[in-house]
Amino acid sequence: MNIKMIRAAADRLRGHARRTPLLTSPFLDEIAGRRVLVKPECLQHTGSFKYRGARNAVAALDEQARAQGVIAYSSGNHAQGVALAAAEFGVPSVIVMPTDAPALKIANTRALGAEVVLYDRTREDRDEIGAALAKDRGLTLIKPFDEPQVIAGQGTVGLEIATDAAALGIESADVLVPCGGGGLTSGIALALEANAPGLTVRPVEPEGFDDTARSLAVGTIQHNARLTGSICDAIITPSPGVLTFPVMARLCGPGLAVSEDEVLRAMADAFKRLKIVIEPGGAVALAAALFHAEKTASDAVIAVASGGNVDAPVFCKALERFA
Amino acid sequence: MNIKMIRAAADRLRGHARRTPLLTSPFLDEIAGRRVLVKPECLQHTGSFKYRGARNAVAALDEQARAQGVIAYSSGNHAQGVALAAAEFGVPSVIVMPTDAPALKIANTRALGAEVVLYDRTREDRDEIGAALAKDRGLTLIKPFDEPQVIAGQGTVGLEIATDAAALGIESADVLVPCGGGGLTSGIALALEANAPGLTVRPVEPEGFDDTARSLAVGTIQHNARLTGSICDAIITPSPGVLTFPVMARLCGPGLAVSEDEVLRAMADAFKRLKIVIEPGGAVALAAALFHAEKTASDAVIAVASGGNVDAPVFCKALERFA
Repeated sequence: MNIKMIRAAADRLRGHARRTPLLTSPFLDEIAGRRVLVKPECLQHTGSFKYRGARNAVAALDEQARAQGVIAYSSGNHAQGVALAAAEFGVPSVIVMPTDAPALKIANTRALGAEVVLYDRTREDRDEIGAALAKDRGLTLIKPFDEPQVIAGQGTVGLEIATDAAALGIESADVLVPCGGGGLTSGIALALEANAPGLTVRPVEPEGFDDTARSLAVGTIQHNARLTGSICDAIITPSPGVLTFPVMARLCGPGLAVSEDEVLRAMADAFKRLKIVIEPGGAVALAAALFHAEKTASDAVIAVASGGNVDAPVFCKALERFA
Repeated sequence: MNIKMIRAAADRLRGHARRTPLLTSPFLDEIAGRRVLVKPECLQHTGSFKYRGARNAVAALDEQARAQGVIAYSSGNHAQGVALAAAEFGVPSVIVMPTDAPALKIANTRALGAEVVLYDRTREDRDEIGAALAKDRGLTLIKPFDEPQVIAGQGTVGLEIATDAAALGIESADVLVPCGGGGLTSGIALALEANAPGLTVRPVEPEGFDDTARSLAVGTIQHNARLTGSICDAIITPSPGVLTFPVMARLCGPGLAVSEDEVLRAMADAFKRLKIVIEPGGAVALAAALFHAEKTASDAVIAVASGGNVDAPVFCKALERFA
């Protein structure tokens, strides 16, 4: 992966992916004690940044392979991205999803035209299931993060951040990114390395699922002890990717971890102050920006709100407790 | 008011007001049976379009008058717009608000630096209270809708709709606008008359508070029987304005009215499909777009989501019932 691939992705996505702004509120600045800018990828098509990488990967396939269809395994956001991208190209898609994915994500993926295959996250290996189905039906596997064209697509978020930060006169800032397998984090890091070298990416994870932070700390890939038990379903992966980790190790600052209460509080603050809907996994970066300001060195902090596909009861729980 | 004033407002607001996009979802298109585009002014500074008119009006004052301060009477959104605009210019603001305004709006107005004066919506006249305070303290009254520079500021929403609709190849559409006193509705109508004459503005109100629809139907200003009892606090006004009504009568199509359940359902759909937070009064246009499609003639419908300042319990009620 390199900046040329990210720029090519931006060309492929022009007129398809939504160009998201940077949102601000004086109330959020006050909580953090510094300037806070939020990149609302929850407003992206399908409700998360994942559409960027999925659309770019499907668009980059050769026409014959694409016509046979694509397959993906995903807890939900990548699923919807791939389903929509496939539908836009008029090709079939099969999505392998965990049984405990939010109902909204499963329903949306089906409604976007995909065939959904469910698996048990604790007993089955989604990689194996996906590979077998791909082979049987001649489908091309679009991996959720460890895939160069997916990383390049997510990197377009970084190009936009670089442009908007420069327009605001921000030359130095920590860019906090919700991190699962590291596709978004490494893509943004590569984009900023080229276009805004004063901005430093910091991956953010839920407490207890901080595989990337620990991997960065020791310099080798570490794994999470558990794979369930977090409300942040979108970013619970066993470990950073083989492709994404070296990029993060080279370019990112130390990882941050936030508590479940901090995540719910950030969701409530985004509701009150920005009028956007963020899902738990998409709110970890804003939570770190607001409630762990002491761990970020910069005058300004940019937090990516990576997705908004949250079921209503979880969202209302956040509002009832913290709005 | 004329298009020149709206263009001058756009110049004054550049770099201050947020440039909002048009959001879409295939799921919303399916409900309405046509293309639905949503202008999310809930993402505007202070959570509603009102900042545009307030900032433009404060910016257009001569420097000496502005330095003495401004006063406004408002159920909340205009209040926050004036408070922020005054704070940005470093001048004092006094806001006269009804006692039954949402707690969030009262708290935000105070937090933005304004002095808040509360009054009883059923027994007192906010115009009289505002005029008396203005006279006593040498403050300039910034009326919520019947004020040319406020209408011009709101009209910038229409300039953006015209530009974005043209880019999408939409030459003919109904533009549904939540309507209280008619400042936003008449401003958008003037902008579209000049820049997108194929787009027709249709004011939308809550059932039982459809003073503008009835005024347009008979050709003279009609009044609401009640001034309380709607969840759509932002757009409950006694009647259309003396300045706004002639513009609406000349340029708008027939008004539409929606039920409280339709409003709550639209809020839930915006949560699920667009990941934005809309307040009840800001959701009437989307409700009409989704659930009264038979009353709009066009292939495409553009709905302005005018604000997002809703208290959490009301929002969760909408989600619990309809998400």
